[in-house]
Order: sequence, then structure tokens, then C-alpha cells
Amino acid sequence: MKHAVVVGGGIIGASWAIVFARAGLRVTVVERDPASVADLPARLVRMLEHSAGLLRETDTPASVAARIGATDDLARAVPQADYLQEAVSEDLELKRSLFADLDALAPPHAVLASSTSTYGASQFTAGLPGRGRCLVAHPMTPPHLSPVVEMSSAPWTEPDVAARAEAFMRELGQHPVRINKEIPGFVLNRLQGALLMEMFRMIAGGVISPADADALISQGLGLRWATLGPLEGVDLNAPGGIADYLRRYGHIFNGMAAEQGLPAPVDEELITVLDQALRQALPLAGLEARRQWRDRAIAGVRVALRDYTGEKP
Amino acid sequence: MKHAVVVGGGIIGASWAIVFARAGLRVTVVERDPASVADLPARLVRMLEHSAGLLRETDTPASVAARIGATDDLARAVPQADYLQEAVSEDLELKRSLFADLDALAPPHAVLASSTSTYGASQFTAGLPGRGRCLVAHPMTPPHLSPVVEMSSAPWTEPDVAARAEAFMRELGQHPVRINKEIPGFVLNRLQGALLMEMFRMIAGGVISPADADALISQGLGLRWATLGPLEGVDLNAPGGIADYLRRYGHIFNGMAAEQGLPAPVDEELITVLDQALRQALPLAGLEARRQWRDRAIAGVRVALRDYTGEKP
Repeated sequence: MKHAVVVGGGIIGASWAIVFARAGLRVTVVERDPASVADLPARLVRMLEHSAGLLRETDTPASVAARIGATDDLARAVPQADYLQEAVSEDLELKRSLFADLDALAPPHAVLASSTSTYGASQFTAGLPGRGRCLVAHPMTPPHLSPVVEMSSAPWTEPDVAARAEAFMRELGQHPVRINKEIPGFVLNRLQGALLMEMFRMIAGGVISPADADALISQGLGLRWATLGPLEGVDLNAPGGIADYLRRYGHIFNGMAAEQGLPAPVDEELITVLDQALRQALPLAGLEARRQWRDRAIAGVRVALRDYTGEKP
Repeated sequence: MKHAVVVGGGIIGASWAIVFARAGLRVTVVERDPASVADLPARLVRMLEHSAGLLRETDTPASVAARIGATDDLARAVPQADYLQEAVSEDLELKRSLFADLDALAPPHAVLASSTSTYGASQFTAGLPGRGRCLVAHPMTPPHLSPVVEMSSAPWTEPDVAARAEAFMRELGQHPVRINKEIPGFVLNRLQGALLMEMFRMIAGGVISPADADALISQGLGLRWATLGPLEGVDLNAPGGIADYLRRYGHIFNGMAAEQGLPAPVDEELITVLDQALRQALPLAGLEARRQWRDRAIAGVRVALRDYTGEKP
């Protein structure tokens, strides 16, 4: 991939442009609003300055921004694309008509990816001749800071296209994850939603204040989760790893579910799935070394926040 | 507070000892198991070395460890306590009989706090003459790395004791939060539980693999949540802050709740509570400065994890 085209020059489009350009690609941002086009270079430089530690050693904010051009001319930009990332507003009709244009304009080898957080690719690529090269690559906002990208195929997305898009994301330094079924909100927003809903319940019930609820994450779980996912996290909290943890404490989760009249989530089938996945990635004998790494990593995150980012406004 | 006594020398007790000692207090750890007493100095030094960036500039791991003594003699240690932190295993009968001993042995001004993650203080202090000075201070494990501490009073805990314990936690550099009702699991573990349960559902349903589910947090939401709580986080994701965000996207949370047959969590009452709390802490005019701070902070966390903590085992 040598040339990426980003359609939409808002917060997400500008951030994608940085992801591509800092990996060395040439980037064209297509944006209809002249004010947004005019404003783009200054916005890019500010975003690049705030994330200068993530640039290659040979780059500066200015050298990365110099790889990014902007135009309002879709028909001239899209034929240059090896990879295309759509980042327009969440309007299904707009995405349908845009993907028809993109499929007509893009060269045959180009992958067409949507940033949508809401729609499955099957909802806006159904009738297209090139529907096999279309998929969703939903980033966490903003992608130049958050590596994770949810990759979601339509039933007709070619496996080779999905594999190429995933490999490309890794080359860029992003972290693609596979969403195996087209599900509303994909998974990232469902995880955030589940946490927020429990927070909302506790606040509405007078158990905790909003500021204290936030602190439970920013001064607690969030520090751990910046270093390890929640499953890897609890895997370290029992001598026998996650299976041991869930056999000891699974009743707590099942009790919470029962409170709300929901089925018990923790059963032997789930324990087997999780145990196999986590033990394949890290044998039990490695848990203690990982615990020590976690401790150094959390201390490192706290020191970085204390020393390098300045007082929170 | 000059002298802290920690009862229990396991992972949580040793970590508490570091919290107190690195703030300059003298600490006595009471531990019955002779092997654990013998092992304690080496464990403390290792933990202190892993978190050396969090020590005062005038301290070294050895100088902090030198403030911590260990004994198996409860009756000799407890009378010295200005503050006592219990960190024995989660056994309600054990906590009942231990708190009776502690209340009999501790000087009148000493605060008696339990590290329990499970029980309300009312469940193990009911009959004590000094029950007014007892409360729960439940840390996230391990407290020398995770600042947040859930402070939960029994109905009879004296407000002055709760206020003194909270102020003490702040002096130590911890971040106390108030749990206003005795509720099973307090709030921290409920938030973690809500997120894990949604993960379990997605994994059991074949939507995502365990490793990819973890990456959605460690390569995504966790990086944001190390810098800002989830409410502060979504507050930055709409021009008009959290009220604007919830009026735009609240239907997504309510839709997720409806899927599970649960009541809609987002209504105007909740929006008013959250809007007032967040706008009191940060006027709308400050949102853009905070967005820029968030961006610098997330980049700083990623750089720290890349450069200072070494490869994850």
C-alpha cells in the first residue's frame, strides 16, 4: 500500500490521515466543506504535536503533515487509492450512495473500508459489483492515539480482502480485532456501554457520586487495563489463572446477573474456552513473570501521567 | 498518623505496608505464618523496586523497607497503632473475632479499617464497644500501584472517623471514593463485573475471541480510561458535553438494556444529575483544552508502555 485516500476530513478522517502518513504512505483527504479543507493542515499539525512520541524517529509533525493533501474532488482522488477509508457522518443513505461512487472510481486492487460505528457493511454495499472488497474498519476515536480497530466483514467480503486489510492495519501499528458476526454496535461500544450502564445504575441509586465513579476507573481499573485486558488481568489474580479465578469468584458474576434476572454467564463451557485461550497464549509457569511486568507497567503509566502530561485542565 | 499496623502479610497486606511506609510512616505487619514473615523483607524490596518511580525523591526501596517491621504478636503490635488496616483472608468469622481483638487492643484514637472486598463493616463490627471507629477501606489490588480505595461505613461508623480515614488516604497519595450504601461487592467489582459479563456473552456467542476482546480494552478503552474516567471520557465526545452526548447516543444504552429486558438507564433525571456534576467540575468552555490534554496523556501512556516497561512476557 502506497497511497491511502480518506473520505471525510472531520475528527476521525484527520486522525486516520495521520495513521497512514506517519507509517510513510501518501494520503489524500477528500472533504467537501472548504472551511474544513482550509483548516486541515493546522489541525493535523496540532494533532501531530500532541502525539509526537508516536512518530518514527526520522519524522517530525511537519514532515508527516507534508505527506497529507486535501481536495474536494472525489473523482480525481479515489482512482489513486490503494486503500480507502471512509469517515463521513453516520448516515446510512449517504454511505450507500458514497460506496457506489467509491466502487465505481477506485482501482480494482483497492480495499474500501468504512469507519462506521453503527452499520454492518452488508447494509451499504449489497448491490455493488465490488462488494467483495468492502468491509468495516471501525476505529476507536481517535485512531492515531487508540490502536484498536474492529474489522467486520459482510457475508460477501472476500476473505483475502479481510486478511489484507488486517495485515495492513498491523503494518500501520494499529491493532485489528476480528468481529465474527455483524452485530449492532460491534463489541467495543457494547463493552463501554455495559460499564457505563452499571455506573448509571449506581449513580441513580445514590450509591456513589459521578466523580467517585469515574475515579474507580481512572485511579484504578483503567490503570490496569492500559497494560492488560480484563481477561489477562483476572488471569493474574488467582494462583491457577483464569480457570481458578472463575471457579473461585464466578459466583459473584452469576449473582450480579441473577439480581437483574439474567442467565448465569459463568459456566464450565465458558471456563474451558477462556482457560484454553489464555493458557495457549501464556503457560501457568509464566504468570509470576507477567505479574511482575504488570506491576512495573502500572507504575510506569502513573509516572508518565504525573511527569509528562501536565495537570489535567 | 505516625504508626500504621497492617494485620496480614499477604499480597494486599504487604502492598498496604508500602503505601504507609513510602509516605514516611513506621509500619508493623502482623503475620502468623513464620514463612511469610521470613519472606516479607525480600518481597517488599522486589515490590518497591518495581514501583521505584512512585517513591519520594529522598527514598530508596531499601529506605522504605527499613520502616516496615514484622511480628506474629498481635497483642504487642496493635497498641502502637494510630491507624490499623486489616488484610486477612475473606472469612467473615475470622474478621468478627479479629475485630473484637483489635478493638480491645488498639488505643482509643486509632481507626480500624478492613480491606474486605465482600462484607459490609456492619457484618463484623456490630457488637463492639468501639464499632464507631471501624469501617471498610477496600483497595484495588495491589494498593501501592492502584490509588483508588473504596471507603464504606457501617451505619454506626462515626462521620469524624470516616472523614479522618479519607483525609489520611489522601495524605498517603491514595484516592478514596465514598460508597454511600453497604452494597455487596461495593462498586469497583460491580463495574469490572459488568464489563466482564458483556465480554463473556460476546465470547460465548462466537462474536469475538478472548484475545481480541482483551485487545479492545488494552489497545483501546483502557488507554483512555487510564487518563479519564468513562463519564469524563464521553463528556469530551459531543460538542455540548455529557448531556449532549446522552441525548444523541442514550438510545444505544437503552437499546442494549432492552435487549436484556432491563429498564432504560438513560432518562432526563440521570442526564440532569450527570450534567450538573460534570459542568460543576469543568465548564463547557474547558472541554477543548481537556480534549487536547487527553490526547497528550494517551500518547504519553503509550510511549511509557513502549519505552519503559519492556516486552510483556
